[in-house]
Amino acid sequence: MSDINQLAIATIRLLAVDAVAQANSGHPGAPLGLAPAAHAVWKEMKFNPKNPSWINRDRFVLSNGHACALLYAMLHLYGFDLSLEDLKQFRQLNSKTPGHPEAHEIPGVEVTTGPLGQGISNAVGLALAQKQFAATYNKDDITVSDNYTYVFLGDGCLQEGVASEASSLAGHLQLNNLIAFWDDNKISIDGNTNVAFTEDVIERYQAYGWHTIEVADGDHDLDAISRAIKEAKSVNKPTLVRLTTIIGYGSLAQGTHGVHGAPLKADDIKQLKEKNGFDPSKTFHVPQEVYDYYNSLAAKNQELEKEWNASLEQYKSKYPEQGAELARRLNGELPKDWESALPTYTPADKPLATRKLSEMLLSKVIPVVPEIIGGSADLTGSNLTRTTDMVDFQNPSTGLGDYSGRYIRYGVREHGMGAIMNGIAAFGANYKNYGGTFLNFVSYAAGAVRLSALSHMPVTWVATHDSIGLGEDGPTHQPIETLAHFRATPNLSVWRPADGNEVSAAYKSAIESKTTPHIIALTRQNLPQLEGSSIEAAGKGGYTLVSKDSPDVIIVASGSEVSLAVDASKKLESEGFKAGVVSLPDFLTFDQQPQDYRLSVLPDGVPIVSVEVMSSFGWSNYSHQQFGLNRFGASGKAEDLYKFFEFTPEGVAERAVKTIQFYKGKPITSPLNRAF
Amino acid sequence: MSDINQLAIATIRLLAVDAVAQANSGHPGAPLGLAPAAHAVWKEMKFNPKNPSWINRDRFVLSNGHACALLYAMLHLYGFDLSLEDLKQFRQLNSKTPGHPEAHEIPGVEVTTGPLGQGISNAVGLALAQKQFAATYNKDDITVSDNYTYVFLGDGCLQEGVASEASSLAGHLQLNNLIAFWDDNKISIDGNTNVAFTEDVIERYQAYGWHTIEVADGDHDLDAISRAIKEAKSVNKPTLVRLTTIIGYGSLAQGTHGVHGAPLKADDIKQLKEKNGFDPSKTFHVPQEVYDYYNSLAAKNQELEKEWNASLEQYKSKYPEQGAELARRLNGELPKDWESALPTYTPADKPLATRKLSEMLLSKVIPVVPEIIGGSADLTGSNLTRTTDMVDFQNPSTGLGDYSGRYIRYGVREHGMGAIMNGIAAFGANYKNYGGTFLNFVSYAAGAVRLSALSHMPVTWVATHDSIGLGEDGPTHQPIETLAHFRATPNLSVWRPADGNEVSAAYKSAIESKTTPHIIALTRQNLPQLEGSSIEAAGKGGYTLVSKDSPDVIIVASGSEVSLAVDASKKLESEGFKAGVVSLPDFLTFDQQPQDYRLSVLPDGVPIVSVEVMSSFGWSNYSHQQFGLNRFGASGKAEDLYKFFEFTPEGVAERAVKTIQFYKGKPITSPLNRAF
Repeated sequence: MSDINQLAIATIRLLAVDAVAQANSGHPGAPLGLAPAAHAVWKEMKFNPKNPSWINRDRFVLSNGHACALLYAMLHLYGFDLSLEDLKQFRQLNSKTPGHPEAHEIPGVEVTTGPLGQGISNAVGLALAQKQFAATYNKDDITVSDNYTYVFLGDGCLQEGVASEASSLAGHLQLNNLIAFWDDNKISIDGNTNVAFTEDVIERYQAYGWHTIEVADGDHDLDAISRAIKEAKSVNKPTLVRLTTIIGYGSLAQGTHGVHGAPLKADDIKQLKEKNGFDPSKTFHVPQEVYDYYNSLAAKNQELEKEWNASLEQYKSKYPEQGAELARRLNGELPKDWESALPTYTPADKPLATRKLSEMLLSKVIPVVPEIIGGSADLTGSNLTRTTDMVDFQNPSTGLGDYSGRYIRYGVREHGMGAIMNGIAAFGANYKNYGGTFLNFVSYAAGAVRLSALSHMPVTWVATHDSIGLGEDGPTHQPIETLAHFRATPNLSVWRPADGNEVSAAYKSAIESKTTPHIIALTRQNLPQLEGSSIEAAGKGGYTLVSKDSPDVIIVASGSEVSLAVDASKKLESEGFKAGVVSLPDFLTFDQQPQDYRLSVLPDGVPIVSVEVMSSFGWSNYSHQQFGLNRFGASGKAEDLYKFFEFTPEGVAERAVKTIQFYKGKPITSPLNRAF
Repeated sequence: MSDINQLAIATIRLLAVDAVAQANSGHPGAPLGLAPAAHAVWKEMKFNPKNPSWINRDRFVLSNGHACALLYAMLHLYGFDLSLEDLKQFRQLNSKTPGHPEAHEIPGVEVTTGPLGQGISNAVGLALAQKQFAATYNKDDITVSDNYTYVFLGDGCLQEGVASEASSLAGHLQLNNLIAFWDDNKISIDGNTNVAFTEDVIERYQAYGWHTIEVADGDHDLDAISRAIKEAKSVNKPTLVRLTTIIGYGSLAQGTHGVHGAPLKADDIKQLKEKNGFDPSKTFHVPQEVYDYYNSLAAKNQELEKEWNASLEQYKSKYPEQGAELARRLNGELPKDWESALPTYTPADKPLATRKLSEMLLSKVIPVVPEIIGGSADLTGSNLTRTTDMVDFQNPSTGLGDYSGRYIRYGVREHGMGAIMNGIAAFGANYKNYGGTFLNFVSYAAGAVRLSALSHMPVTWVATHDSIGLGEDGPTHQPIETLAHFRATPNLSVWRPADGNEVSAAYKSAIESKTTPHIIALTRQNLPQLEGSSIEAAGKGGYTLVSKDSPDVIIVASGSEVSLAVDASKKLESEGFKAGVVSLPDFLTFDQQPQDYRLSVLPDGVPIVSVEVMSSFGWSNYSHQQFGLNRFGASGKAEDLYKFFEFTPEGVAERAVKTIQFYKGKPITSPLNRAF
């Protein structure tokens, strides 16, 4: 190992150790063990620290996100916008160096990691998007996209099912632009991995269709790491490199789980610095020659970006149409007038399931918005997510599609799909990607959905069969708590459209979104096209569908229960009651409207009853009384179930009358008026 | 194949086809393909249809639960309490034959399946429990437990990450009492599995440490299936049998996904019946010789149970102490006076983290309740789930523990752990089993948690680090929506104890539970022991902690915010306001109290403000105003975070005052008083 390599690696290690020590909190073990690999791998990568969003940069994903002190040190040394001062604020409130890396907060962090298994799965999405992007735009004479995605992952990531799902799919798709390094240090929080994790990982990845490489001495053998990368680039499969390392390398407690998640002791840091020729009295020390060295690497990379910029200009002039599209996408803009492709409906149009309306919308919108790609977790024919003209995204050698295909066969892998979707969104190029499954099984992907919301990934779940209305499949498939779960998640739009216009409003919100993921809950069963709905009205998240002067009651509902509320309102009218109806397809969007508008929809002085055929949990934010289904469903014909649970015009009207009676003579405050 | 075998298999097939046709809904393909295997496997199994809860029965798990018409046909033919009339009611409301098999509803159904990947993972739990049970009670001269667990699973199950997690652990644990049959029919809903699932499953399972066997002709070769079972019983690993079958065998559309999820057409059923020598004009026909045949098998099995009963009696007299314990457990009773092991505390006791109080409780209770076993998803030292005296549950050959060990090293496999926990509970013998992880990562297991609640499995999640109070790990690890998600799930107790007495109340509820799973959310940070708390009071789910005559406001809180509310109450007193404090550790338990009691806690006439440092979603069921954290958290010291988000006595008091002012002069109805 040359002196500068050694010095650079020591600097990375000691920056990470100092950051953890200063915070008195964090994980020194993995940074110490992985510093040589990080040094060796980043040398092979192309990226520009001054433009972290260059579309053809190589991506680096730290799937073992707890090792982020390593990542922050690398970002600082290479000249990303992360100062020594930032490193000193490691894990402190409002710093740029939180306890796990957050993509939307820190330049150079590609995806948010920490929850194990997510990073490697995001990386599959990053690699998938690169293939799709390259196949769409590359020309024989001009290469727009040829970047690689590199991943570090630990034993924890390999044990998580989400990683298994994504890795199996990556093997199937032959994503040879994906190179993962498994930090095989034999230690996890519970001690030696032999207490729970004795499978043959290499054999498993070979079974998935990955290429595998062993680097026996990951602590020193930088050449072997470089050779592994070269080899990985030469095969037609994703590659897993088994990198044998010693956790906490150089620490007095190296090789034990004692170095995993707690700061090193002062005397340990002292001996570590002395061993590396550093002055133990100094902290956060970076030798100038290390800065110089990384700057020179960064400068070479900046040249690469310049060359790429030049070929992009060439591309634009030689292929003006695709060039313009490319430029538009890189600017994060949608095609002009794309919204005119959104279908609209009138009450004269026939009743349809909202999943069917979703399919009809996709068949109009997908042809005009090339950055939309999507798929389903093996429920294509039920989710109706594949429009007639779509080509499957597949390795062309399979004869089943090609890499420019826009339809992804995810297999029965909801969590993997969710994490891959995040990776596709993180790739950039304005990708708007969706994934289909039953609403109930979005919960399988809860870990990934939460990270979509936290890290601002505008992905879309096409979540069909959204209630007991799915019928015979029964309670194992009927969502009850699902909407409450996702509505309680910050920065997550949860749409439950009631008809065709509301389906268009939901997709408009999803496709225009830059930072908010969407779940669109859709029915299996037919719903009528409503009088009074429109894309614009629904676009506010909630609106008055049936307006009454001085109503006796307002019924607020979503999705399939909105038409039920309208019917109940008619029934109530015949009984002498005036019942307004409000459709509330998305709480989050409604919450963002001005309070004046919101109070015009749900005003003071009127009792409000909500109707939704699942858990009523949370509806008291918008209503005084709630009619919901606070038990599991049942297997039976959808009509029978709705009747059994009294979700009928009569059942709703009865509860509306009880609500009127309950509040008779009492002053009524809108639930939207709050004390603070 | 002998005539009776052929006739029996034809009968199974046609019962399943008739059931699906009658319902005009369901999945005929897998039952047609798997009927021979079901016939061959059940012949090798020991069980008594007249006593489906015999503890030493072999278990059968249909992981591909959509094939339940097959299971229902088998249960009927063997003489379980499931009539032909029940089969005719397939998938109808309130029938005993729902669209997916539900364990708590149908005798002979071991676990609830349908959501893919769960069944095989439950089966790992069933096998694990058997090993633990056998190692605990078997003697050299008397075998109490030696049953096997058989599983059918499809491609869908194999693609799910939860199955990967559980299977990897089963291999590690060398559960050689587990025999799984993979229905390799090459078809899933999206068509040929080659669109998404081309990994080498056999190689993957070998990598997990499983034994594998190939049965090339699963449609006919009953002998090969019997031989496979014999071989599986002879090895020291779990076994996966690859059973090559034709989906929808015998249908005109056999081998296509057309037979997967839709009834066969009338002419197809006609030719199928004719081909099998059945009268096409008859439906639900069972030849008497088929009943006789299965009855004779069942009778042989009943003999086995009789013999077992005899040896149990022998056991009781020879080993009176363990025999009594065994009898008690089989009766589903806890040890007498076990509750006296529950710790109690007074305000003089020192502040402790509730996770620490949980550990102290476990160390008292585990020695006196032998049916408690538990583990952690690689967070043992953080969850504090392993008490000093516990032995690891491991194959003795590892030298790391033995099969009578009561501590399970789950690895970083939350979803697998959740599904395995359900399997352990389903085994019976009064097992009370818990699993630890951070509260935020219980969400990874949402699919399994939902099934615990739906199928009445009384498992317990020890869910530590339950808020921003975990500090530096930051928003990727800090729950916000998690409690709302699980509180909205029916039949799920979600405890968030505020001190030691409430921790005891939470565990008392969990350990006494027979049908309700529990999540116990515990802090990382210290909390004081409260004046006024007790096991009895907290056992009601909610109670008045600080009582005031004619209070100006009631502050209702949970967990770490209860002591905050008490401090705020003191502060308010100094400002001239009377603020009562209510602790509400579990919504579900509180909801089950008589309305009189509930209204004594949260009465009419007093404004109520809730305080909980996460999403306030759902709290309006118990309060008029909510102080919550409706955004993601942040990385920083816990104290800094609490201050930043204003969860301080001052911040709470300020909101309480605003609540008082908001309702001044207005009549106030308790949120517990409902219109319907």
